[in-house]
Amino acid sequence: MQLLKDRIRKDGKIKAGNVLKVDSFLNHQMDIKLFEEVGKEFKRRFADMEVNKILTIEASGIGIACVVAQSFHVPVVFAKKTQTKNIAGDVYTSKVESFTHGRVYDIIVAKEFLGKGDKVLLIDDFLANGKALEGLAALVEESGAELVGAGIVIEKGFQVGGELIRSQGIRLESLAIVESMDEESGEIVFRGDKA
Amino acid sequence: MQLLKDRIRKDGKIKAGNVLKVDSFLNHQMDIKLFEEVGKEFKRRFADMEVNKILTIEASGIGIACVVAQSFHVPVVFAKKTQTKNIAGDVYTSKVESFTHGRVYDIIVAKEFLGKGDKVLLIDDFLANGKALEGLAALVEESGAELVGAGIVIEKGFQVGGELIRSQGIRLESLAIVESMDEESGEIVFRGDKA
Repeated sequence: MQLLKDRIRKDGKIKAGNVLKVDSFLNHQMDIKLFEEVGKEFKRRFADMEVNKILTIEASGIGIACVVAQSFHVPVVFAKKTQTKNIAGDVYTSKVESFTHGRVYDIIVAKEFLGKGDKVLLIDDFLANGKALEGLAALVEESGAELVGAGIVIEKGFQVGGELIRSQGIRLESLAIVESMDEESGEIVFRGDKA
Repeated sequence: MQLLKDRIRKDGKIKAGNVLKVDSFLNHQMDIKLFEEVGKEFKRRFADMEVNKILTIEASGIGIACVVAQSFHVPVVFAKKTQTKNIAGDVYTSKVESFTHGRVYDIIVAKEFLGKGDKVLLIDDFLANGKALEGLAALVEESGAELVGAGIVIEKGFQVGGELIRSQGIRLESLAIVESMDEESGEIVFRGDKA
């Protein structure tokens, strides 16, 4: 998606440790007009698929998921992160390992909001190691719902997440895949760019 | 807002301890069509005011804020909750006391996304004790931005938050104000309803 790649090149900031900061338009301040275009693009890419629910994860996935949902005319459910020890039996739960925060947390979705008959599209802002997306896919499987695919705004193509998810046969559409980035020069190479 | 009150009466669940569960359409599963109507209503109520940014708080405020932002054609910034001890100097920070979780946490917004010249509308899903909204208002004040007002989807009129915020001279628009609710009968009385 050219509009998105241009925006990443213009406003993304490359930090030490392969960190790509896009918090001026994606995950702290949110450019809703851009989100609308992202929603249209996901709808175009999943045009052949029936979707009746979008599932995302708090916090930064929620905004993009809600605007994308307008293109699909479906409700959104977000998985909650929790460290609560005793989780009631009326939720689906899965474990996610966070590299950023160096810990494992549970994600939960109430059983009443996910189940047989649901055709679920996963939406998230970032894909890096793939653990969050894997956790969401596990919730969908546990619920008996059908996993239609996953839509990601920015995939870090040099990390394992994309390969991990695609190797499980999950249809993954990432709108911008960063192949490499250079902290010194500020250069970003996207997958599919001409050399 | 009649559509919202009807929905709360239809799908809201009253639990012990004056808990109103609306997680089937507002803050776990999210009815995006309803959010669009909520956005139009906030725009109508704040039609006389200039707004160039919406500020909300993670997690459940983000979805509603992003859809409301479409009616105002402005970006959204969400305050992050953090328990990190060492917060860098490039953020505004405020303390919020959570009654639900029985602890105090910090909320932060990066300085680059809030400041002089911003005309800020606060948006959140719930207003009960008012601590979250007060924390957001403090961030706005610290930043030098102008606080235009606050838009709340559901206010618990029998808790102190509404009075607290209004007594500070903040323009507060709540789309449904619950005066009382009865766990036994399931009856909900809204402010402004005829007796």
